[in-house]
Amino acid sequence: MSTLRTKYELYVTHMRKIQDVNSSIALMHWDNEVNAPIKGVKLRGQQIATLSAVAHDWSTSSELEQLLTSLYSQRHALSENEARNIELSLERFNTEKKLPTKFIKLFSAAQTNAFHSWLKARKAKDYSIFKNDLKIIVDLLKHKTDLIGYKNHPYDALLNEFEKGATVKQLDVLFGNIRNELVVLAKNIMDNGNPSDKEFLKRHFDKKKQWDFGIELLKQMGFDFEAGRQDISEHPFTTAFSSRDVRVTTRIEEGNLLELIGGCVHEGGHALYEMGLESEYYGLPLGMATSLGIHESQSRLWENHVGLSLSYWKANFESMKKLFPVALGDVTLIQFYKAINQLAPNCLRTVADEIHYHLHVLIRYEIEKGLIDGSIEVESLEEIWNQKYKDLLGIVVPHSTYGVLQDVHWAEGLFGYFPTYSLGSLYAAQFFAKASEDLPDLQEQISQGNMKGLLEWLRTNIHQYGKKYDSEELCKRITGEGLNFKYFIDYAKEKYSHIYNIPLDVLNKEIEI
Amino acid sequence: MSTLRTKYELYVTHMRKIQDVNSSIALMHWDNEVNAPIKGVKLRGQQIATLSAVAHDWSTSSELEQLLTSLYSQRHALSENEARNIELSLERFNTEKKLPTKFIKLFSAAQTNAFHSWLKARKAKDYSIFKNDLKIIVDLLKHKTDLIGYKNHPYDALLNEFEKGATVKQLDVLFGNIRNELVVLAKNIMDNGNPSDKEFLKRHFDKKKQWDFGIELLKQMGFDFEAGRQDISEHPFTTAFSSRDVRVTTRIEEGNLLELIGGCVHEGGHALYEMGLESEYYGLPLGMATSLGIHESQSRLWENHVGLSLSYWKANFESMKKLFPVALGDVTLIQFYKAINQLAPNCLRTVADEIHYHLHVLIRYEIEKGLIDGSIEVESLEEIWNQKYKDLLGIVVPHSTYGVLQDVHWAEGLFGYFPTYSLGSLYAAQFFAKASEDLPDLQEQISQGNMKGLLEWLRTNIHQYGKKYDSEELCKRITGEGLNFKYFIDYAKEKYSHIYNIPLDVLNKEIEI
Repeated sequence: MSTLRTKYELYVTHMRKIQDVNSSIALMHWDNEVNAPIKGVKLRGQQIATLSAVAHDWSTSSELEQLLTSLYSQRHALSENEARNIELSLERFNTEKKLPTKFIKLFSAAQTNAFHSWLKARKAKDYSIFKNDLKIIVDLLKHKTDLIGYKNHPYDALLNEFEKGATVKQLDVLFGNIRNELVVLAKNIMDNGNPSDKEFLKRHFDKKKQWDFGIELLKQMGFDFEAGRQDISEHPFTTAFSSRDVRVTTRIEEGNLLELIGGCVHEGGHALYEMGLESEYYGLPLGMATSLGIHESQSRLWENHVGLSLSYWKANFESMKKLFPVALGDVTLIQFYKAINQLAPNCLRTVADEIHYHLHVLIRYEIEKGLIDGSIEVESLEEIWNQKYKDLLGIVVPHSTYGVLQDVHWAEGLFGYFPTYSLGSLYAAQFFAKASEDLPDLQEQISQGNMKGLLEWLRTNIHQYGKKYDSEELCKRITGEGLNFKYFIDYAKEKYSHIYNIPLDVLNKEIEI
Repeated sequence: MSTLRTKYELYVTHMRKIQDVNSSIALMHWDNEVNAPIKGVKLRGQQIATLSAVAHDWSTSSELEQLLTSLYSQRHALSENEARNIELSLERFNTEKKLPTKFIKLFSAAQTNAFHSWLKARKAKDYSIFKNDLKIIVDLLKHKTDLIGYKNHPYDALLNEFEKGATVKQLDVLFGNIRNELVVLAKNIMDNGNPSDKEFLKRHFDKKKQWDFGIELLKQMGFDFEAGRQDISEHPFTTAFSSRDVRVTTRIEEGNLLELIGGCVHEGGHALYEMGLESEYYGLPLGMATSLGIHESQSRLWENHVGLSLSYWKANFESMKKLFPVALGDVTLIQFYKAINQLAPNCLRTVADEIHYHLHVLIRYEIEKGLIDGSIEVESLEEIWNQKYKDLLGIVVPHSTYGVLQDVHWAEGLFGYFPTYSLGSLYAAQFFAKASEDLPDLQEQISQGNMKGLLEWLRTNIHQYGKKYDSEELCKRITGEGLNFKYFIDYAKEKYSHIYNIPLDVLNKEIEI
């Protein structure tokens, strides 16, 4: 028994050391996007590559392999949580081992280069500045799918990195539903409903005041500023160096109030998940988010089901109005609520409404799949992108910064990540329905600015478990069934029937056409 | 020959990897002082400890040892600079090898803990909060002197880490001179001269405007904001992740204009040295500052000989006055120049005048020496500190934040560092005298806000060499002689005779008493 204990402790120490290195890499990435001067970029890339190689070496060391195989064979003598840590670590080990250190270093350097040519390309509104570095990323990822291996489609190998068990086969069905149902729903709402004015959202909103308001929103959600901070970056993101140091970023536009609110509440949702992970499991699977889909369910739940709800603005509209008496002086709560929930096809994913959002994800999913299986070339990516936006959303992309260059993900080598945005949104609807059932006065609490009940529910049902349960199992444990598209559709229909004054049965009937 | 070439390249790659890790550690330290939320501190300490162990392992690996000994034996076939890199790397290797990885980890963790208890202790003005962590640092350092070894005094082992070749024996003489000459000089000036009003420096100076002004001063010096940045921290410092990413910090007080100016120009001087190192030598000795004394000579040269000169304010006083028309409206250039150069004993080192400054360093030198050789106990440090300030500067320390807790150095485990401040100041006087000889219109250039000539002189004579020459050799190459106390004394007498309207011969005579 004492040998088993010693081995488990050695395993924990080993995993924590890997996490230490990964946290320092995460800090360098954060610093690159928040602080780093432009001339330091090349050497920073080399620094990240060196540390990535260390993390990879340690993650694939024979010492770890021996510990894991030995502990796995004795897992029945471990506690349930310990055994689960071992099982998941071994699984991860077997994948990591397939990637040679040389590949990790090349990929890490490619990420840094691509990120910075993406920044330059955005500034110049010129996709061609980015494309060579993107080509390198795509070629490396194709190679990665061969290294990792896959059953049916090479893209499955990449999906699995972010959402265990996800496959092209399943996602083709899911995005088929999205294409069939949501294109029609969006069209029906816009054709039959009464749009509301939303022009006032583009009035002048002082940056400093927006920043301060964002901080207040984060505090209200339960974001702990002694265990995290907010900064400004080109593209909002959340990163965690431990559950005690979680960082969100946001961007602020003087003529667009929604950019800030959406950013803070969305990233705040991610951050609360990271802050809610058990710090005793630092570095171990049970101390990590179970999947990106579940991670996104947290940001989307806060962003859509809280931040875009009438209850939320009952709590916050008056204090916001005090900050912006000129810009919002003539605006009522209901006008504001309707304005922030107007549907309109738009070329930017991050400011998309809740329904069109999934069409943005669908386009990225199809493109990634195509780039990885070779049916789409990086060279012609911009044309394909623009064509899909025309076909599916009916809009013309004005230039590449509002088109193919809008997201940071590909510049960071993240392929297989986008689909988790739709998964997350669907999980969010399903979780929020269940939370509303468990907490009958949830809307009342939210309308009083009291988010404690909701946060507690999320901590209890989701955050505390880390990777203990996979996404699908977690969903079943909480809601009694696997992911079900119906919750999102029901939620969307009810919400927009109210906002657009369309009887629910009209929307229901129309859908069947 | 090709084997030699290959070996040298392997050596370069190895050294760069070590630098990559050290740069990521430096980023974590920087982030700790600039950004990090308080609850993340413990795990951050662990992260730094893990990476410090990696850097140490690589710095003491048998692979590196073989490369170095082999290359050293063939050094005559290398270029002069290559041979120097090998020689210095081997020297460093032999020291590093004496420190076991376990010690490095313990010390790294102790640094992090001490830094944060120092922060807490400062807030509470209570030395006792800090003292246990300081005791751990001191005990570890005592152990370190045994590990490294020394000839005469254990403190020599620590001094050598920052200033190669420095010894207690030499410094006792140097600080003996300081005690004998500067106590008398300061007293003579204050007794015989006419003090000027400096109360207006404590008027209200808007923080944001101070910040902007500081940025302009840095730009004027030649600080490249595409290769660096400035932030706010508790204690100003400079750190570099490469010569292309150099970071300075400053602190701003609304009622103290000098805090900012001193901070910016001083740290800016450090930063220009780092920016002036050859980036082709990244990770190699010739790409690193030769010693802390020379590093400090750069900050002091800019701070004292430029930033506190009349010429400098001829260039900058009017633009500063425009920023603070209320606070400085009734102040003339000469009044300002005299005000910022008033002598007065003060309990804070960082705001000390140029003469009393050395007495602050002397006190720290004596205390460090005593802590390391056991003649002073951490327990009674505060009393000893306060007594020395009473004896040497004639002042009563109001509380520990203005006393024994004022500097971050001990909290960061930096013992042997303080003496380099005095060395730097003396080197600065000697270098500036030589620069003034080489550039006859230097004062004229400075008074026009043109710092290019001076920066070029520093780049050519000092920055570009990195560790190619040790401090003393560098000083001889530039000025034709080793460090000579006379340059500082001559400079100080001339400057203060002017500011206090005391004939130079009066000061000269008095000194001999």
